[in-house]
Amino acid sequence: MSEERVVTACVLIIGNEILSGRTQDVNLAHLATELNEHGIQVREARVIPDDENEIITALNACRARYDYVFTTGGIGPTHDDITAECVAKALGRNLYSHPDIEALVRRREAPPSVMAARMRMALVPEGAELLTFSFGPGGFVVDDVIVLAGVPRIMREMLTSVLPKLKGAKPVRSRTVSAYVTETQIAAPLRDIQDRFEQVAIGSYPFTHEGKFATSLVVRGTDADLLDSVCGEMEQLLRGIGEVFDPES
Amino acid sequence: MSEERVVTACVLIIGNEILSGRTQDVNLAHLATELNEHGIQVREARVIPDDENEIITALNACRARYDYVFTTGGIGPTHDDITAECVAKALGRNLYSHPDIEALVRRREAPPSVMAARMRMALVPEGAELLTFSFGPGGFVVDDVIVLAGVPRIMREMLTSVLPKLKGAKPVRSRTVSAYVTETQIAAPLRDIQDRFEQVAIGSYPFTHEGKFATSLVVRGTDADLLDSVCGEMEQLLRGIGEVFDPES
Repeated sequence: MSEERVVTACVLIIGNEILSGRTQDVNLAHLATELNEHGIQVREARVIPDDENEIITALNACRARYDYVFTTGGIGPTHDDITAECVAKALGRNLYSHPDIEALVRRREAPPSVMAARMRMALVPEGAELLTFSFGPGGFVVDDVIVLAGVPRIMREMLTSVLPKLKGAKPVRSRTVSAYVTETQIAAPLRDIQDRFEQVAIGSYPFTHEGKFATSLVVRGTDADLLDSVCGEMEQLLRGIGEVFDPES
Repeated sequence: MSEERVVTACVLIIGNEILSGRTQDVNLAHLATELNEHGIQVREARVIPDDENEIITALNACRARYDYVFTTGGIGPTHDDITAECVAKALGRNLYSHPDIEALVRRREAPPSVMAARMRMALVPEGAELLTFSFGPGGFVVDDVIVLAGVPRIMREMLTSVLPKLKGAKPVRSRTVSAYVTETQIAAPLRDIQDRFEQVAIGSYPFTHEGKFATSLVVRGTDADLLDSVCGEMEQLLRGIGEVFDPES
């Protein structure tokens, strides 16, 4: 890899329901794609339970390694929603009740116990900048931590509102070429291409298409001209062995 | 949580294509469900790139914390398939060419460079026990690490073949009850129930159904009678506030 400036991130997916298999996470793929468009590379993701020690440990470990840590999940009003207080503890900040959220919550009347539960959602670490989404307050940014909802529709809305606030570098772009070849047929010459172009990362992904074995070669990097040139070499390699085709068409 | 014996696992999802957003992981949910049925609780998952240092670091960190570490991805014949050599390095074992896989690979003739690429798939850590799947050799078990394919169909076949070799304890079971209530309406009494039953974990998951706000309450634990009893309390709580229904029907 070249020495150009990169901005990196880790995604912490918080929730017992993901680790139990009850819920299929779909937030990581969306975050990875959108963050990359903004010039932030997701380098790692962790799925962790609704457990204070686990969340704080993961936050600290990942903050030390990446420019940003994004969390999804655990920001509702119930006892298993502990992300905000864990972020406060990890950052050594006090948790406080944000007056803007309190005002929003008070707009709709409710019995005292319901109001108290809603007010839990006003608790954020001191210094947090609130994100807004169309149904009311939600996530927040504090230091290098971006706290997002777990519900995909709401997470996406929050992400859109936070992206302009974040620094980014060049997005990673990719070129893909696919052919009816097996991975073993192209492994040796493909390694040669990778060895000659250290600034890009080449991936090889086997699949079946219309009952035949096929392989997609993907080259990733930030330099468009270089990607075109490497992709040209990969295509030439594939054409010498099997039919090149577009699996999307 | 009670002090009963539990068997824990971490899943390492290895692959740039997951972190780039190109590929949606579906292996974690399957692994979590199947392993739990066998009495192994998935406590964490990490998605990491095709990078030797990252893979070795994650293997060592997770082996220290969990009974088993399952990996998916990176076991093909191309340059980006480095899981086997990383596992060997993490465990301090030599990588060697397994004669059973070599014999299988030699059955089908191929030009020398293709044969050499296929032979890369015969490389496993010393002491590894091979898993078989219907298309030939694939993953392996060595010490507390279980190395599986990334392609979901193949991963599932390998998992089925390895499960009988692994020790398990009691599976975590769950009971779910759903109603047209918001989370804030039940947050306070739900916390009381959780506080009274520390041996189970209660989760609250909001969703919309036929245009109305709804919440599913899920209680997880290993004691079926206790789950029934807690679920009865949750249902009684919900019935006092809104209509209980089955979102699956």
